[in-house]
Amino acid sequence: MSISMYQASVPVFQQQLTALKGVLTKAESQAVAMKASPAVLLEARLYPNMFPLTRQVQIAADFAKGTSARLAGLEPPVYPDTESSFAELVARIDRTLEFLKTLRPVQIDGQEERTIDLKVGGQPRTFKGLPYLLHFALPNFFFHATTAYAILRHNGIELGKQDFMGTA
Amino acid sequence: MSISMYQASVPVFQQQLTALKGVLTKAESQAVAMKASPAVLLEARLYPNMFPLTRQVQIAADFAKGTSARLAGLEPPVYPDTESSFAELVARIDRTLEFLKTLRPVQIDGQEERTIDLKVGGQPRTFKGLPYLLHFALPNFFFHATTAYAILRHNGIELGKQDFMGTA
Repeated sequence: MSISMYQASVPVFQQQLTALKGVLTKAESQAVAMKASPAVLLEARLYPNMFPLTRQVQIAADFAKGTSARLAGLEPPVYPDTESSFAELVARIDRTLEFLKTLRPVQIDGQEERTIDLKVGGQPRTFKGLPYLLHFALPNFFFHATTAYAILRHNGIELGKQDFMGTA
Repeated sequence: MSISMYQASVPVFQQQLTALKGVLTKAESQAVAMKASPAVLLEARLYPNMFPLTRQVQIAADFAKGTSARLAGLEPPVYPDTESSFAELVARIDRTLEFLKTLRPVQIDGQEERTIDLKVGGQPRTFKGLPYLLHFALPNFFFHATTAYAILRHNGIELGKQDFMGTA
């Protein structure tokens, strides 16, 4: 088995998003147990000008579907950013995982040189497929997945590295 | 250009560690400007049972050198965990970057099936090269690099996503 663009993207996103679902599920049940409103966690931030938990999860899911879709030459599906509960965030991840399951390796493998045009912070950027995946999309994806975990740990939710990693 | 085990490891670590050096350098100078002791930031944690900044940086650097070395069939270099200043953390990253520069693509490419034995949390684990890199090492590496950034943001250091990402 040789490494490929598909292997370095879709299954990596699948592992981490599945782990993130588990993290969110634990957080909600612990919030109930500590008599905290789940909404407090959903709005929690590490600093006033950082995104809250809900947005971190939305962006992580968006990097997973956006990156995979663009590498496959598809328009990324658009989900409205309207989640206001843990259940709705988990549902967004499920929807993202369902989309990822529709992608076949043949659609993404060999796309190292594909031109990817997108806006980053409102500015147009052009990447080739390989640096887009390895040097832009994966660091961003992991940034938001980790920050979601960090917000919850900072708020006293009991989680371990294994919760972050998932099944690997 | 086809994706390869080398491309998915060494240059990814190089980008992120170089960015982390910049993050640490900004943090130290801002600590001075806000009349805070740099030691306070070095010992800062997001929660009492999480690692402080110094340890997050050490572990990020260790994942970079350990992963790359193991994939190349080399014994990972061992650096003592004795850093007690920003300058020493930057020096550890520099040492790690120097080690990464010695690795050639031919040493790591094609190592998808290499057996990797290591201890994780004191327990022996065995991986094949490809899942070791994509499903264990990269998530861990990004976890610690992101948490280092998150600790500093949480303590009021002014940083943006671009500081985290580096040059991509």
